[in-house]
Amino acid sequence: MQKEKIKQAIEILEELNIDLWITFVRESETIHDPCLDMIVGTNCTWQSAFMVSRNGKTIAIIGSLDKERIKNTGVFDDIRVYVSGIGESLISAIRELNPKEIAINTSINDHMSDGLTHGMYETLMEYLSKAEFDGKMLSSEKIISALRGRKSVTELERIKASIAATEEIYSRVSTFMKPGMSEKNVADFILDCVYKQNLETSWEENSCPAVFTGPFSAGAHADPTARTIEKGHVLNIDFGAKKDGYCSDIQRTWYFLRDGEKEAPEPVMRGFNTIIESVQKTAEAICPGKMGCEIDDVARNYILSRGYPEFQHGTGHQVGRSTHDGAGGLSPRWERYGETPFYRLEEGQVYTIEPRLPIDGYGVATVEEMIVVTKNGFEWLSHPQKEILLIG
Amino acid sequence: MQKEKIKQAIEILEELNIDLWITFVRESETIHDPCLDMIVGTNCTWQSAFMVSRNGKTIAIIGSLDKERIKNTGVFDDIRVYVSGIGESLISAIRELNPKEIAINTSINDHMSDGLTHGMYETLMEYLSKAEFDGKMLSSEKIISALRGRKSVTELERIKASIAATEEIYSRVSTFMKPGMSEKNVADFILDCVYKQNLETSWEENSCPAVFTGPFSAGAHADPTARTIEKGHVLNIDFGAKKDGYCSDIQRTWYFLRDGEKEAPEPVMRGFNTIIESVQKTAEAICPGKMGCEIDDVARNYILSRGYPEFQHGTGHQVGRSTHDGAGGLSPRWERYGETPFYRLEEGQVYTIEPRLPIDGYGVATVEEMIVVTKNGFEWLSHPQKEILLIG
Repeated sequence: MQKEKIKQAIEILEELNIDLWITFVRESETIHDPCLDMIVGTNCTWQSAFMVSRNGKTIAIIGSLDKERIKNTGVFDDIRVYVSGIGESLISAIRELNPKEIAINTSINDHMSDGLTHGMYETLMEYLSKAEFDGKMLSSEKIISALRGRKSVTELERIKASIAATEEIYSRVSTFMKPGMSEKNVADFILDCVYKQNLETSWEENSCPAVFTGPFSAGAHADPTARTIEKGHVLNIDFGAKKDGYCSDIQRTWYFLRDGEKEAPEPVMRGFNTIIESVQKTAEAICPGKMGCEIDDVARNYILSRGYPEFQHGTGHQVGRSTHDGAGGLSPRWERYGETPFYRLEEGQVYTIEPRLPIDGYGVATVEEMIVVTKNGFEWLSHPQKEILLIG
Repeated sequence: MQKEKIKQAIEILEELNIDLWITFVRESETIHDPCLDMIVGTNCTWQSAFMVSRNGKTIAIIGSLDKERIKNTGVFDDIRVYVSGIGESLISAIRELNPKEIAINTSINDHMSDGLTHGMYETLMEYLSKAEFDGKMLSSEKIISALRGRKSVTELERIKASIAATEEIYSRVSTFMKPGMSEKNVADFILDCVYKQNLETSWEENSCPAVFTGPFSAGAHADPTARTIEKGHVLNIDFGAKKDGYCSDIQRTWYFLRDGEKEAPEPVMRGFNTIIESVQKTAEAICPGKMGCEIDDVARNYILSRGYPEFQHGTGHQVGRSTHDGAGGLSPRWERYGETPFYRLEEGQVYTIEPRLPIDGYGVATVEEMIVVTKNGFEWLSHPQKEILLIG
């Protein structure tokens, strides 16, 4: 897998006209540059430089104690080991490769491309100056964004397997939930399924799953509480199983029928259908070349046009090794998203679509689906929810 | 626990004459500043600033979706929530606090104090300039080093509980191991104990435990292999259980008797005893105020004086929430350790002592004990290995 990604990285360097990409880390179990999982596949203790060069050369400079571990991954062709300090080996590798451009993992916009700490940045700059490097320093965000975004066949298969696991657990939850249970009971049931199947949660388990029942529930990202499911509640769950290192992220919405009800009341149906319609319209707008914010507009404006308040987050994000993956998202043009709403969609990227709206007196309606960008449009990865799930 | 640490932090700010300490993060599940575990206790998605001020004020500025989660921790008194971008709230908080010095999590020396990425550093600098901050910027390494190092009573109790769990597992391993088993078999047995007791491993489990049998085994930090235990092998294990968020890190050495042997042969005894003696001498040298490198000298020079090669790592490191914790270590004056060998020992710090030496033709002897620095010296936390463990 890492070898596949390194090969892709070399192609991307050629495409972007960048001579060398350096991932520079230490004690990576504690401060973890997310690139390591993609291109190295293990951690390292001392200062380590993983260099991928446009001419196809791959060099790892590592502390002596990490040698076996890095060698066993079989990813880097040229492994150079030091004992007292990395300086000498690093400087001579730079001189040898003599790059015109060096990309490093620093980015104001994209946390996935910002794995280089400021202390390590200063250290690296000192070594580069000692190596008399006088070329151009760049952010690796375009490399990483392309590399994380363009899923290989194996990667897509893994994501599909995670989605299948999530959907299977959702179908169990549907038969498990009853009025009188707490959000916490529901979350515990889901986590139990996760453990029994040797899966992981896609994000930290105190809010994966997130379960919200009824009006006045906590907002998104909050942990499940002791709040009890009652008849007449709209309930939604945000959950994803992670399998073989790849994540899924799906939301579903239920309604608990009151005595005598056969279906959800009109305001619930109207809210839920607005969400379903906005998901469908958003998906249909997707194709390579469009900017994330253009896609975000579709969901956001539709929900506003139906008289609901604006949701306070992006319409969707990429998914991969991480739940929030890749640089560009289907995000509004807000300060906190930096430049990323203006990134253009590429074939092979996996996105969520997850609008949200409150239904006064009932709860929150959310549906989150996953799609992959294809050559001319999109394909569903999840099986889209079409009807509100009724319990009662 | 986090509240205890924030209180300690305010005292340390006073001690160090620093007005304000800012921990500035985003998507902290992916890029994780290790300070968060100590002073926040949960993750956050959008740009977030956790401010601890010398006058006792604590402010968290966070994205709206993270509100419940941060509120529920109950650690920060003043929680300010934004939707579109953090800039405005951050700038006004800085103006309001009007600090003369601001410490941030960046450090060339200490990875534990280097949680601020370079991209986030640039973002923060821009906000500080907009806030017209013209005071002094400092590394928080002294704050973090003191904060991580000085263990509270609760913290020490947790570390002791982890050590007890590790020692219990070691005693099981001693009766489990037999010639003919592979390093991998032994590692799997230990991991099985860890899972059954609902513990975690102190570092990533492909090398926790690390198991090395016989001569020509892989060096430290390598993953267990299919190499088989044979009679006449020296075998060592490096392992630590993690319990309630606190780590342990202990190494033990065994010898597998050959047919007819009642004890280990002379070269094995000499090597093993050199390790035991060096651990004892090192521990006895420990007291507050000494520099880490002075303590390192004791173990290193003793082993050299007995004619063995120099080990290629520090004599010991601090242990806490992380296996490699705190800034200062019992380290040699080598480039890769930066300034940290010159940090002075403080009461309440927990260190490992872990010299190592090869015994030609048999394997590697290592023993790793854990101690806490007391007012006048040290106390053992682990029960020191005194005799080589014999199997056969």
